Amino acid sequence: MQIAVLLYPGFTALDAVGPYEILGRLPGAETVLVAGEPGPVRNDQGSLALVADRALTDVPRPDVVLVPGGPDSRRAMNDPQTRAWLRAADETSTWTTSVCTGSLILGAAGLLKDRRATTHWLAHEELRALGAEPTGERVVFDGKYVTAAGVSSGIDMALHLFGRIAGDEAAQTVQLLTEYDPQPPYDAGSPEKAPAHLVARWRGVSTASLATEG
Amino acid sequence: MQIAVLLYPGFTALDAVGPYEILGRLPGAETVLVAGEPGPVRNDQGSLALVADRALTDVPRPDVVLVPGGPDSRRAMNDPQTRAWLRAADETSTWTTSVCTGSLILGAAGLLKDRRATTHWLAHEELRALGAEPTGERVVFDGKYVTAAGVSSGIDMALHLFGRIAGDEAAQTVQLLTEYDPQPPYDAGSPEKAPAHLVARWRGVSTASLATEG
Repeated sequence: MQIAVLLYPGFTALDAVGPYEILGRLPGAETVLVAGEPGPVRNDQGSLALVADRALTDVPRPDVVLVPGGPDSRRAMNDPQTRAWLRAADETSTWTTSVCTGSLILGAAGLLKDRRATTHWLAHEELRALGAEPTGERVVFDGKYVTAAGVSSGIDMALHLFGRIAGDEAAQTVQLLTEYDPQPPYDAGSPEKAPAHLVARWRGVSTASLATEG
Repeated sequence: MQIAVLLYPGFTALDAVGPYEILGRLPGAETVLVAGEPGPVRNDQGSLALVADRALTDVPRPDVVLVPGGPDSRRAMNDPQTRAWLRAADETSTWTTSVCTGSLILGAAGLLKDRRATTHWLAHEELRALGAEPTGERVVFDGKYVTAAGVSSGIDMALHLFGRIAGDEAAQTVQLLTEYDPQPPYDAGSPEKAPAHLVARWRGVSTASLATEG
């Protein structure tokens, strides 16, 4: 099973690495970080680069496609090579997945039309404008399309998907070995739970400004 | 505030990137991925490389030191350059931190002697052998030393630390913007919670075998 993780300039590191860490442990998985060209790809914060080991053209038929988000996902959304690769890969993929605003990139490639999907809580209307039906859920399955909410939700998405692919016991084993027993010190991880004045401060802010202001 | 994330061959990607994603959003933070030499550093799974932008010698006095774990952390534990850098950086650091078996690397450098600390649940005895007092907690503060349990716990550690450094409201904002509202599909993330037969299967297995078997 080949898992392709798409990288592009300005991606959010945890969007890619959270699910990578889980899905990469699938029995027999070959995980490949891909980009337009092989080489280092720098993230939204600018202080981290992941290496794309292969070019998109080298990985035409992955079984799983994973698209991370990023505050400036618009560039990837509008990139003809990325769109063409996503459309072609999706024709034969078993699962086409995204984290955070990665769903906007899938949507821009025309892959989420009339599908239930999710994205970062600040980007629901952008997702709707691309023809999808945004939900408030953290992880959304619609057939083979699996989308996750903001940044950290990719870990939950990957664990769900791991269970579907390899069974509950194998997924529980990965949860145990990665000690995924979350205990955040605050309960502010969604707009429903965070203090209202913090949510209000960010409502209406475009996700593109999050890299510098967040 | 300079945050140095130590990379070494065989590190676990999420150990580094989970806390990076949170701490990198500290106001005024300069986050630097460091290794013995600049360049790509490949992880435990072998399918991902993060770029070290600076050599250890270029970053002698970081404010925050972050050491990720990895199943073959022994090489980093025994590396004279890494030990010397950790000891010297620790002399002036504000916080010295680790995730998973990263605490074994801190311990091998002599930094956790008689300190309360934690590590991956399979490595508690190794940590004890290095002079620390392992606890069952997910995140342990002992003075400026902050250690986290296995892999995913670095996110919780970083959020705790973010709150200490920048205040609760700033930390809650980061939790909201990274949508860290965990909803794992299983409740198997610790040896106390996972099915007993899964825990029994892994007890006594060295962490060094996790890269290939996990």
